[in-house]
This record gives sequence, C-alpha cells and structure tokens, in this order.
Amino acid sequence: MPAPASGRPRVVILGAGFGGLMAAKSLGRAPVDVTLIDRQNYHLFQPLLYQVATATLSPADIAVPIRSTFRDQKNTRVLLGEVETVDRAARAVVLADGRHVPYDYLLVATGARHAYFGHDEWEPFAPGLKKIDDATEIRRRILLAFEKAETETDPEARRNLLTFVIVGGGPTGVEMAGAIIELARKTLVSDFRHIDPSSARVLLIEAGPRLLPAFAETLSAFAQASLTRKGVEVKLGEAVTRCSAAGVEMGETSIGARTIIWAAGVEASPAAKWLGVAGDRAGRVAVTDRLTLPGDDHVLAIGDTAAVTWRDGGLVPGIAPAAKQMGAYAAKAIRTRIKGGEPAPFRYRHQGNLATIGRTSAIVDFGRIRIKGFLAWFIWGAAHIYFLIGFRNRLIVMLHWIWAYVTLRQGVRLITGSTELP
Amino acid sequence: MPAPASGRPRVVILGAGFGGLMAAKSLGRAPVDVTLIDRQNYHLFQPLLYQVATATLSPADIAVPIRSTFRDQKNTRVLLGEVETVDRAARAVVLADGRHVPYDYLLVATGARHAYFGHDEWEPFAPGLKKIDDATEIRRRILLAFEKAETETDPEARRNLLTFVIVGGGPTGVEMAGAIIELARKTLVSDFRHIDPSSARVLLIEAGPRLLPAFAETLSAFAQASLTRKGVEVKLGEAVTRCSAAGVEMGETSIGARTIIWAAGVEASPAAKWLGVAGDRAGRVAVTDRLTLPGDDHVLAIGDTAAVTWRDGGLVPGIAPAAKQMGAYAAKAIRTRIKGGEPAPFRYRHQGNLATIGRTSAIVDFGRIRIKGFLAWFIWGAAHIYFLIGFRNRLIVMLHWIWAYVTLRQGVRLITGSTELP
Repeated sequence: MPAPASGRPRVVILGAGFGGLMAAKSLGRAPVDVTLIDRQNYHLFQPLLYQVATATLSPADIAVPIRSTFRDQKNTRVLLGEVETVDRAARAVVLADGRHVPYDYLLVATGARHAYFGHDEWEPFAPGLKKIDDATEIRRRILLAFEKAETETDPEARRNLLTFVIVGGGPTGVEMAGAIIELARKTLVSDFRHIDPSSARVLLIEAGPRLLPAFAETLSAFAQASLTRKGVEVKLGEAVTRCSAAGVEMGETSIGARTIIWAAGVEASPAAKWLGVAGDRAGRVAVTDRLTLPGDDHVLAIGDTAAVTWRDGGLVPGIAPAAKQMGAYAAKAIRTRIKGGEPAPFRYRHQGNLATIGRTSAIVDFGRIRIKGFLAWFIWGAAHIYFLIGFRNRLIVMLHWIWAYVTLRQGVRLITGSTELP
Repeated sequence: MPAPASGRPRVVILGAGFGGLMAAKSLGRAPVDVTLIDRQNYHLFQPLLYQVATATLSPADIAVPIRSTFRDQKNTRVLLGEVETVDRAARAVVLADGRHVPYDYLLVATGARHAYFGHDEWEPFAPGLKKIDDATEIRRRILLAFEKAETETDPEARRNLLTFVIVGGGPTGVEMAGAIIELARKTLVSDFRHIDPSSARVLLIEAGPRLLPAFAETLSAFAQASLTRKGVEVKLGEAVTRCSAAGVEMGETSIGARTIIWAAGVEASPAAKWLGVAGDRAGRVAVTDRLTLPGDDHVLAIGDTAAVTWRDGGLVPGIAPAAKQMGAYAAKAIRTRIKGGEPAPFRYRHQGNLATIGRTSAIVDFGRIRIKGFLAWFIWGAAHIYFLIGFRNRLIVMLHWIWAYVTLRQGVRLITGSTELP
C-alpha cells in the first residue's frame, strides 16, 4: 500500500458516515495525512433512506461520492476497501484484499447494521434498511407485491401480498409505516384495475410498550394516533418470534404477509472483533471519556460503533448529530495529542429527536420544547434539507418533495433487478 | 387471467417502449379493451440511458411507471409479465407464469436486445446498454475501474484498469465514448491521489469504414474529429474477434482492458419465435405494408421487432420516432379494421438523426439541413427534454444537465451492488 511519505502523523479513518466524514473534514487543515476508508464510494444521508425505499427519492439524491467531497482537501486520500482486521501491535489496518494501511491514529466509525437477535435466518424474508442496496431491494419488494396482487386470483394469496409488516417501532419503523400507507392510499390508489391498493394492510409491530421510546410519552402517543388515523395497525407489546416467506409469528399469533421490513434492532459493525476487545450486547466498543480504547490512546471509536456513556449511565443515542459531534471531537482530540497535549473529555450535547409520520406530520422533541404535526414536519424537512451535503442534492430533494406534496405522485417507482418475490 | 367482460374487441400490446406506449395512448378513446404487457413496470426513455451509465442521470429520471401513465385511461390495464409464447390458433398470449391473455388484435412491440453475433460468451465481459440494470452495471464497472486503479501497484494491471473499450461506432458507441472521456478528464480529474484519471484511454472500435453510418459522411467525419480531439482513440475497419476479462482482440492485435462496453449490434426480441414465423438475420419479423403478419391481420409487429421496408429496399431505422409513428399507425389501423375497413399502408416519414459527442457538441442530420457542434447539441438537448415523458422528469433532467454543465461534476457516481470487477 503506497503510503504518503510526508513524515506527518497518519490518521486512518474507517467509515465515511456522519462521524467519519466530519472527522476527516475537521482534519482538513491539520498537519496530518488522512486516509479515509469506506467499502462504498459514497457518503449516505441515512435519515432519508426510507424515502428511497418508498419511491420518493433516488439513491443519488441522498448520496455523494466521497472523493468529490475531498477533492480539494489535499492532505486526505480516499480508499475503497473492506476492513479485515486491525493489527494494533503493528498499528496497521488490514484490508480484505491483503493491503496494510499503517496509522498513527486510528478512528473507527463504521456504524451499525440491523440485527436479528440471533435469528439471521430471518434476513431473506425481513430485510433491514441501512444501505442503498437495502433500500432499492425493499422498494422492489413493496412495488412488486402490488403488481403480483393485481394478477393473483387466490384471495388469501392476494391478501398476503397486500399485507406489509414493519417490525420495530423506532423512527425508521414509524417512517416506513407512514410512507407505505400513503403509497398505498394516495399514490397507487388509481393505478390498478383488479385490486384496490388502499385495501392494503400496514402493520407496525413493536415489542415495547410504546412507539418511539426516545421521545416524550405525549409525542409517542401522538405518533401512534396519527398512524392509526392514517390506517396503520399499530401493535404494541408484541415480540416477533419468527419471520418466513409466509409472514410473521408473535407467539401463537401469525400474520400472513409477503413483505416484512425489519426495523427492530441494530448491532455495531464488527469493530470490537477487529480491535480485539469485547463489545457490549449490541457489539459496541467501550471507550473512555476521550473516545479512545482503554489503554490505547492511538485508537478512537465513535458513532454507532462506540458505547459512550451519557447522563444517568445511559448511552449517547445512535443518531446523526451525535456521530457528527463525536467526529468533530475526535479530530480535535487527535490534533491536541499530536501537539503533546491531553484532550478534554467528550461532552455530548443533545439537540433533540425528530421523526416524520407520513407526508405532512412529524414530531420534534427538543426536551423542553415539543412540537407535533405540520409545524414539526416543516422543521423536520428544513433540518434535513439543511444537513444534506451538496447544493445539488438539496435542490433536487426539495423539488421531489414539493412535487410529491402537490401531485401525490412519487416518481421513483421502479422495480429494478428481478421481478420475482422471495 | 380475469379478462374484461365488456364484449369490446381486446387489443393486447406487448412492450411499453416508444411504439407500444404510443399505440396504447392512441387507443385511449377507442371502443376497445387494451392490455399492455411489459416485463418491467416502467417505460424507459432509452436515448438517455447512456447518461445513466456514465453517472449524469439517475434511473428514475428517464423512467416513468407505466401504470401512472395510464391511471386515467380507463379502457387500459397494465400487466407486469414475461411472454412465453403466442397461441395464434387460440388468439392468446401465454405468459411465463402460465397465464393466458386472449386477444382480438395483438401488437408486438418488444424491441431489441444487444447481440454478440453468435458469441454470447462475450456478454459477461462486454455488457450492452438496453436496460436500466445494464446501465447501472456499466456505471458500476467504469467507476470501480478507477477505484481499483487508484490502489493497484502493478503498472500493467493499472493500465488495463484505466483502458475503456467501446465496441461499435453507432450513436450509442459515440455517446458512450464521449461521455467516458469527459468523465475521466473533467469530472474525476482531481478526485484521485495516486492515478491521473485523465491518463485513461478510451477506444472506440468500429468494424465499418466510418462512425455513425446513418448520418451524412461529413457529419461522421466531424464526429470522428471531435472525439479524437477530446482524446478518444477511434479505430475504424477493425472487427473484434474476442472479448475476455483481459480485453479485446481484433485478429492479431489485442488491447488490454478491464472495461468493455458492447454497442455493436442488436437483435430483435424473440417475437418471431413466439409467433411461429421466420425472422430475418437480426431476428426481426417480416410484416406487410399494413404492419401485419402476412396472412394474419390480427397480429401486428412494430418498432425494432419488425422489418419494415423503406425507400430503396432499406429498412425503417431502429429509432424512437420510427417506433412512435408505427405505434400511432397501428392504433389507427386497428380502429379501422374494427369498423370493417381496410387501413391505408404505413408510410414512414423520416425526420432526421441526432447524436451527441460529449457535453456540448452534437450532430443533427435532417437530410437537407445538417448541423454540427454547439447549436446541434442545443437542438439535441431541447428535443430530448421535449420528448421525455412527465413534467417532473423534464425539470429534473434539465437541472442535472445545467448542474453538470456549470460545475463539470456528475452527481450520480454511485457504485451499487458488488465492489468487485468480473
């Protein structure tokens, strides 16, 4: 692996998500050589991924090539690569193709994947939503289910095709449920001749006692009432015990459904394994209050990969602003250490939680201030446009939203890949 | 297969390309029941597909869901399905899943696929460009080649990664060559640290004596000179005798290249086989001057599927305006026959040929009037925006073009799917 021969400290960042990207940007003027490694060639604006899965946005609208983001940042190189492991003794990242990338400081920001609580065999039937390929696969399944239903003559099979189950009542589950019911009742309603798309059932299943547990209880209740009014069947306190091609089971109950979407749990990337440390139950790496590995100041972990304690012994939530704060902190901490200093501890400043419930409603929880309904949706939209990277993407996403809002049509209804359901 | 029980004549249209879509639209107010069958759920604006393959446009920008196009045309239903064969004795289309769709009039408009002149084993190494999945696959390969080159240490392997061969000097080949050289020399030029993307070789190989044989010779010469000035190596009179993972061979000569794009030949869909008639050398179905099968007035074939004679014994060219004229004619002919009349023969009115050569140059051949350079490019752009379906797509494509023109950036540089080359 040709390494820059500048003699400056080498900072290797794994993952170009919100945390990694922010760290790399923050090191733009630092006297270091930055290597940013990702297994994709783009940074993904994950909070809007559900809109790709539900045919409002195209993948490119919420993704920017990592290289073009750093084209003018001369101390930074971008590598497309998959991490195999980290050789902490030799201070080098080992990539899957055998390349070694040496580091003086390593920042692990590889995020999280959806997890099936030990039931990986459910994945083919209940895909999760973390990557672009996940989103286009879910879009394919949703649209194809309506197509197959249109020509299905057996009533039970047709009913199963028109039943959509979302497992998990966090923000992703709530957003998917809201978007699918609107797709069925608004966008597709006049498109078919044999089926009535608005008869589709959308079920949101949550094992806990309420939706959106990170929000205030009043907002959870509002979200639940809104979804119910739109036609979503919300089921609380029910744990899914099986997913298959036939549908989902919750203990004795079973629901026939050809489309299941998994939004129930995440698990950190295999960072703990790479680093040779023990991860917590969700695979996260325990870090010090300087976000370093205990006993190794040269390795930092941030974002969904790290378990960072917050008030009352809880953890910093797995949301984009938190990852960005950690990324900025990590960059600063590395600069301080290079100068021989000791960085101050990381302090998370919680700015709030946002989630949409369909086309024109959302909830915003700023702690003291809580907003729901249309105004919250406006704040949600403005925040997401603002934080999107690239003027082009902001403009295009805004146009798509205005278009979808005015016409109730969603333009990205493409079934790509196979036209068979699993 | 539930069939409409209106008692009105049933018109079944196979394929929602330019011809099929036009025919279905033209039958909107006719006293018939129309069934439009396609194996995709979208109509594709194929003339801009090369811009998806070269990262300027997203798939959804040039595709519209067929259903939404016909949502308000009540005599028309849309079916997602793959044709297995046609039972002409029983007057029914047989789909791959066993469904039978009866017809009184059948319109075959299933277009063409790229063909390898009996060398289908070349396809994995030299994908063609007819479908959206083709375009995203070619985009993946082009972008990945630059990524792999960035970390390749062997000089020959790196050179092969940075060599792009386009086989076939028709409009698609010319457009791809122009777009790839601009991607390398304009868009990607500052993005890498180890390789110089502008050192990439782009070769356009044509077996015939000149590029774009459908155009006037002066325009062919202009296109060749423009491409050469941009840096494309144009090779005329050289037939490719082998494509492999190593590159292409032309007799004794071989060129090492990891990316090969096939734009050399097309072959009609298997319509001749379905209909039980003999196809011509390119698989096209011979039709009468009423576009019907000889001896069967109930079956029509149009577009790239049909061999329709034109002036001097030549054939109507395989371009979108020709397919649309045939679609409109077929709809009118069916209406005439239903009323008991005999339609007048089909007359093709050739309006001209257009092709782009990169970002700001094109050639337009209206026969008497021939235009080249920027003005031709403007005409080309205006025509393509005008004929795109849907206001939303027109707006978005125009924005993408202006954006790419002003910034020299192309936003859709996503590597989706695998990150390995074949």
